[in-house]
Amino acid sequence: MALSGAVRHATGSQPGRAGGSARAVTRTLSDDPLGGTVRRTVLPSGLRVLTEAIPAMRSVSFGIWVAVGSRDETGPQAGAAHFLEHLLFKGTRKRTALEISSQIEAVGGETNAFTTKEYTCYYARVLDEDLPLAIDVMCDAVADSVLEPADVETERGVILEEIAMHDDEPGDEVHDLFARAVYGDHPLGRLISGTEETVTPMTRRQIQSFYRRRYTPPQIVVAAAGNLDHATVVKLVRQALRGTPLDSDPAVPAPHRPATPAVRTKPAATLVEPKETEQAHVILGCPGIDRTDERRFALGVLNNVLGGGMSSRLFQEIRERRGLAYSVYSYASQYADSGLFAVYAGCAPGKVDEVLELTRAELARVAADGITADELARGKGMSKGSFVLGLEDTGSRMSRLAKGELLYGDLMPVDELLARVDAVTLDDANALAAELLARPMSLAVVGPFGANDFTA
Amino acid sequence: MALSGAVRHATGSQPGRAGGSARAVTRTLSDDPLGGTVRRTVLPSGLRVLTEAIPAMRSVSFGIWVAVGSRDETGPQAGAAHFLEHLLFKGTRKRTALEISSQIEAVGGETNAFTTKEYTCYYARVLDEDLPLAIDVMCDAVADSVLEPADVETERGVILEEIAMHDDEPGDEVHDLFARAVYGDHPLGRLISGTEETVTPMTRRQIQSFYRRRYTPPQIVVAAAGNLDHATVVKLVRQALRGTPLDSDPAVPAPHRPATPAVRTKPAATLVEPKETEQAHVILGCPGIDRTDERRFALGVLNNVLGGGMSSRLFQEIRERRGLAYSVYSYASQYADSGLFAVYAGCAPGKVDEVLELTRAELARVAADGITADELARGKGMSKGSFVLGLEDTGSRMSRLAKGELLYGDLMPVDELLARVDAVTLDDANALAAELLARPMSLAVVGPFGANDFTA
Repeated sequence: MALSGAVRHATGSQPGRAGGSARAVTRTLSDDPLGGTVRRTVLPSGLRVLTEAIPAMRSVSFGIWVAVGSRDETGPQAGAAHFLEHLLFKGTRKRTALEISSQIEAVGGETNAFTTKEYTCYYARVLDEDLPLAIDVMCDAVADSVLEPADVETERGVILEEIAMHDDEPGDEVHDLFARAVYGDHPLGRLISGTEETVTPMTRRQIQSFYRRRYTPPQIVVAAAGNLDHATVVKLVRQALRGTPLDSDPAVPAPHRPATPAVRTKPAATLVEPKETEQAHVILGCPGIDRTDERRFALGVLNNVLGGGMSSRLFQEIRERRGLAYSVYSYASQYADSGLFAVYAGCAPGKVDEVLELTRAELARVAADGITADELARGKGMSKGSFVLGLEDTGSRMSRLAKGELLYGDLMPVDELLARVDAVTLDDANALAAELLARPMSLAVVGPFGANDFTA
Repeated sequence: MALSGAVRHATGSQPGRAGGSARAVTRTLSDDPLGGTVRRTVLPSGLRVLTEAIPAMRSVSFGIWVAVGSRDETGPQAGAAHFLEHLLFKGTRKRTALEISSQIEAVGGETNAFTTKEYTCYYARVLDEDLPLAIDVMCDAVADSVLEPADVETERGVILEEIAMHDDEPGDEVHDLFARAVYGDHPLGRLISGTEETVTPMTRRQIQSFYRRRYTPPQIVVAAAGNLDHATVVKLVRQALRGTPLDSDPAVPAPHRPATPAVRTKPAATLVEPKETEQAHVILGCPGIDRTDERRFALGVLNNVLGGGMSSRLFQEIRERRGLAYSVYSYASQYADSGLFAVYAGCAPGKVDEVLELTRAELARVAADGITADELARGKGMSKGSFVLGLEDTGSRMSRLAKGELLYGDLMPVDELLARVDAVTLDDANALAAELLARPMSLAVVGPFGANDFTA
């Protein structure tokens, strides 16, 4: 029923969209004491441009974010968003693949892209003087790719190698297995890359159709942070998109948005991927909360205390006291309409039962007794400190602008975010722990086991 | 014969060492236009403190660097430097392991450590106001660890899990295999972590002895970068070390430095690690140049052109044109008295021969015909741009200070480094290519093969 989350937010949050007018609408969003001035312009087409001007920086990070990811695919399309992401670096009417990469690399810039379940991002980081070049190259690549049939074939090989590489990394693979344990056949349970079975037969026509239906101006947020001038960035983006399918001047009709299925999570499931590894890679977890849930700040603090750092309960219990794992941590993921909370550990295959028992016991203890005031304070310090430390780099500032716009339709000012973390009470954290950590837990294991070894 | 490189540099470069006097000696090293003021103080003990003051930053990165790594170990000690690095977070006379991590994490700081073949680094990144705390905690942990026998046993388990985790990552493992192919039994050919065989029987006494003999003030560089005041940092470091074995006030005798063997590289060797992986992980390469070789700037440019980015020859040839690999790149490593140049590719097992043939052909072509003027310009742009972009973060600036001091006994100013890159001529690059790329190549392969599959 519901549209996918990222997309719903994106289409639902265009207060500044200027309809049929040819005027771009600009406003200043925030001017926080730690950062620069944030400005937002909505072009007549609905494409949004956000910038943060930070004159003390020498670099600029520039990103094109599209509100489409693997959850927007149908089953047979699985991997289309990611396949497309690869192809957009392969050439446009103006540039070959080599020209795209060499023009950025010749000035020492970095460029890359990634696909998630809810969005796709193309970005570059360059010295400030090279921003016009980066805007021109990146906009051209994303807006006007030709998807040459021969390139589709070549890139299919690259993607199949990427999938094979991933299969050689059991510590990554177990995260995908866990998503499948929780979401089953729902798109959130599928691999972002697709599988060999879906990527092999995918046609250029399917990918082309996905591109043109999904990459429309209202679904796109352009974000930049660093030593820049907002009006110049807007002007350069409009110039670079002129004459492309993303031309930002004419208003475009609202995109056709096929419905994607409502999220269902399965009852707690256990999935084992038998593999002759040295370690057992294990994830124990449950459905969490969605991205707009007001308890997300409490969850951040709770997660820090449970398994967010070296001083966390699980790290202390499993690694520091018993030496059972090198890597053990908890994490929370949020999507538009769903979320995950999980604990990962990599341990000797013979110690899996002990590690699982200790983990379950610790989660049960926190569900029953809550965390302490000291832990709450430390968890808040971690949330605030890591957020503020993260603001010191143009890439993370650029991402903050884009994700705020794409996923929330808004940018939470730094001081408001810090205040929201500060406002988390012991009762908030413990009420959430009591509810969340008492949920039935799913289990994913990659290691030298049989498929039924963990089924009671 | 020769002492290990890092150590030789460290002991050979103490112009400011103040002998028996109790006076610290401070000088200003550089004040480059892109960065902050760099100051260097040599304490009476020989311990060096370098800082870079960058008032526009909110964070400070603080590191304690010790001129000892895995190449300083004897065979039965293999893994001692890394084992010790783990243990130094386990507690001092003043703090438990939990207190060490929780004090930094409570203020949102990050702390970690790593061991290389030639040095070991302990670092923290915190908000500027928390620097005094970070200095106190980190100096205490590194200088005054108690190495409790029970903690040695627990941490042995953690390290064995770290080794097992590494064994589950064939894309990492192949790099170690390649080092063994080139260096054989020389310490540079061994695993930094040691192996299960050396770590299992290692005693507390051995580690303690390694600690006390190797961690002496003249072997240690303390570096910090960010919003800080040099004199305050020096004062806080002296306070924090007072009464510890690294007390910086009394002069200490020159450390006993056992000789480590001179580097020998083997004739080109082929090593295969048979493993049922999805991909073949392959490295082809040869001995390179050492860290002080004047040709290192030319090698950086040449490496960029060969396999340093998406516009490089190998990426274009193997990935862009043929889709044979997702990951393919070249790299150059430098040690005090040796170096490596190598190409990595991960590809389908059935395509290894084709990938190797293409790689050999490309290297031979560059050895014979050289690179073009366009490629030279792009390679220089990559070297300069990525260096300058890297200066925008306090962690990389802190590392630059420490590595300069530890490995070169000096800090090359930013503009000099850029000028050295600019000065590389086509003749320089091509002369180096002709010599380097014509060397006999060693080969390392992890994948579903027999041990003799690649021996002619």
